[in-house]
Amino acid sequence: MKSAATIVIIGSGNIATCFGKAFYDAGYPIQAVYSQHIEHATTLAAQLKTQAFSSLTLIPTDADFYFLALKDSVIKEVSEQLNVNGIIIHFSGNTSLDILNNHKKIGVMWPLQTITKNYQPEIKNIPLCVEGNNESTTNSILEFAKSISNKVVEMNSTQRKFAHLAAVMANNFSNHLFEISAQILKEHNLDFDLLRPLIFETARKVQHENPAEMQTGPAIREDLKTVNEQLEMLNEYPEYKNIYEVLSKSIINQYQLKSKK
Amino acid sequence: MKSAATIVIIGSGNIATCFGKAFYDAGYPIQAVYSQHIEHATTLAAQLKTQAFSSLTLIPTDADFYFLALKDSVIKEVSEQLNVNGIIIHFSGNTSLDILNNHKKIGVMWPLQTITKNYQPEIKNIPLCVEGNNESTTNSILEFAKSISNKVVEMNSTQRKFAHLAAVMANNFSNHLFEISAQILKEHNLDFDLLRPLIFETARKVQHENPAEMQTGPAIREDLKTVNEQLEMLNEYPEYKNIYEVLSKSIINQYQLKSKK
Repeated sequence: MKSAATIVIIGSGNIATCFGKAFYDAGYPIQAVYSQHIEHATTLAAQLKTQAFSSLTLIPTDADFYFLALKDSVIKEVSEQLNVNGIIIHFSGNTSLDILNNHKKIGVMWPLQTITKNYQPEIKNIPLCVEGNNESTTNSILEFAKSISNKVVEMNSTQRKFAHLAAVMANNFSNHLFEISAQILKEHNLDFDLLRPLIFETARKVQHENPAEMQTGPAIREDLKTVNEQLEMLNEYPEYKNIYEVLSKSIINQYQLKSKK
Repeated sequence: MKSAATIVIIGSGNIATCFGKAFYDAGYPIQAVYSQHIEHATTLAAQLKTQAFSSLTLIPTDADFYFLALKDSVIKEVSEQLNVNGIIIHFSGNTSLDILNNHKKIGVMWPLQTITKNYQPEIKNIPLCVEGNNESTTNSILEFAKSISNKVVEMNSTQRKFAHLAAVMANNFSNHLFEISAQILKEHNLDFDLLRPLIFETARKVQHENPAEMQTGPAIREDLKTVNEQLEMLNEYPEYKNIYEVLSKSIINQYQLKSKK
């Protein structure tokens, strides 16, 4: 039996904590945790039964994987300070692989999920989007990723950028619509609790169905009377009226395209 | 013990079927099912152990509740043909109470949930939005509604119209964003399965959290570099680019408003 891959975690935020624990729980020896703030590194290192560093020149140089769990804006800068032998991997959906080009073996393992302190979904259900700069590196990362998640997909940097864009539309923009709905309800003395079951049900359905086939509401029915009434109800909120108009038109266009097929 | 309220169901579609069964299961005697297509009425009536009618002049006139489970566009017409004594109730979110004004005791019991043949959420978890034209009628409907759902709310026709608008934004528009995301993924040879866990997680979080407090992504971070890159990636899809722009601007505006507070 070959021995488990060894790991160094660079960073101490949500992603570092969530994945550090997952790696540790899966039996991988964590060789070190780095953070520029030694107290942050120490907190996470204690959980992962390993040593903490606040200097990149002191971290072990012979681990198999160096995971950069950092803000997009500092990945390049930190990676350029690393002088180590293993595979350097970042977690970012919106950052190209080649930002790590000053190293020989580089990769990406992007978790396509929202991960915050209070909500840590089970790692095995998080899609991990993997890329490496050569076949052997890619295979090493794929093999590793598959040992902690059931949903591992290989994709290149262009695909990852579009997947990130799709995630922004599906997640951030929907959440903004939830926020607008909550506000409309509040201004009419109604509680957002009223909408929570509907939001949950829509997301539950889409786990098995194709969203294109489950659209309902006035726009897809081309019920222009209701669409226009609702637009008028938004007269006081020109920004929301614009959102309503743009999305309704797009639903109607999509429907008309389909009908022509 | 007073005897259970008696019910006539007008209609035989999804809502008629879903609520007909719920009323029956809750122990209410269903006196009749009406549909203009006798075979549809017969199918549902068989499930509810009652009689089927395709003529409105023949239905029993002494039930306590007449539930009109009909398309918005025919509620008025059908209600005007009814000559009965009980409370007349429609299920529509987007239809005023006063459309039933030719009757003395009228009301609304709008289920704020998406109900299709394949997905029938548990009735007790469906918010029922109730209105009546006088206190005694309202109380009768409220009491009845509370016997089948744990989430009964009284609201007037204006509130209901705004709740319906909020539901369109939270449900139909989000679903459209899911559809656009699926399309973007497909055109880059990626499967929509990648996004399903994220969509589910976002909806799960919003069950307990306020959407305004859980926004993430480039717009709320005012990461204009990413916003502009993603806008450029949508150059081939002017309609989606417009949606991206309008929603990102709205997220940024909301954030700036909050920061000023």
